[in-house]
Amino acid sequence: MNSTTLGLVAGTLTSIAAIPQVFKTLRTRHAGDISIWQPLLLAFGVALWMVYGMLIRDLPLILSNIIPLICNIILVGLKLYYDRYAA
Amino acid sequence: MNSTTLGLVAGTLTSIAAIPQVFKTLRTRHAGDISIWQPLLLAFGVALWMVYGMLIRDLPLILSNIIPLICNIILVGLKLYYDRYAA
Repeated sequence: MNSTTLGLVAGTLTSIAAIPQVFKTLRTRHAGDISIWQPLLLAFGVALWMVYGMLIRDLPLILSNIIPLICNIILVGLKLYYDRYAA
Repeated sequence: MNSTTLGLVAGTLTSIAAIPQVFKTLRTRHAGDISIWQPLLLAFGVALWMVYGMLIRDLPLILSNIIPLICNIILVGLKLYYDRYAA
């Protein structure tokens, strides 16, 4: 495996990592054990990575942060919602 | 704020994001709402990012993934432990 392939695998894994958490939280309708800080920091962080990607005109950096941004914004919303209206 | 500073802030946020989850899980001794896939995929992903960083000899890439790697390995362990021996 060359270094570019390795980088792409690494990027894919970190990009999709939050997806299972979104589905689990939607299924269980419960987010008590989740720290809101993780999705909050990740949402801000990956948003800034995207802005950085735009500034340095790096398309992979922009694209690879779209899924994590969406997932972590959803997780912040689910955390706030289910902590207030837990099933 | 120039682009390098922005990138450093982005990197700091995504690097420290898992720390609050580690402390919350240690405090509550309960991880039922956490999907094991998120820390598992992130641990593998950031480990590969570090290997990629070594291959392309990029020190920031290596260093910025140390904290997430440690945190996500701990979270996988805590998830497995507390799901079995929940408080």
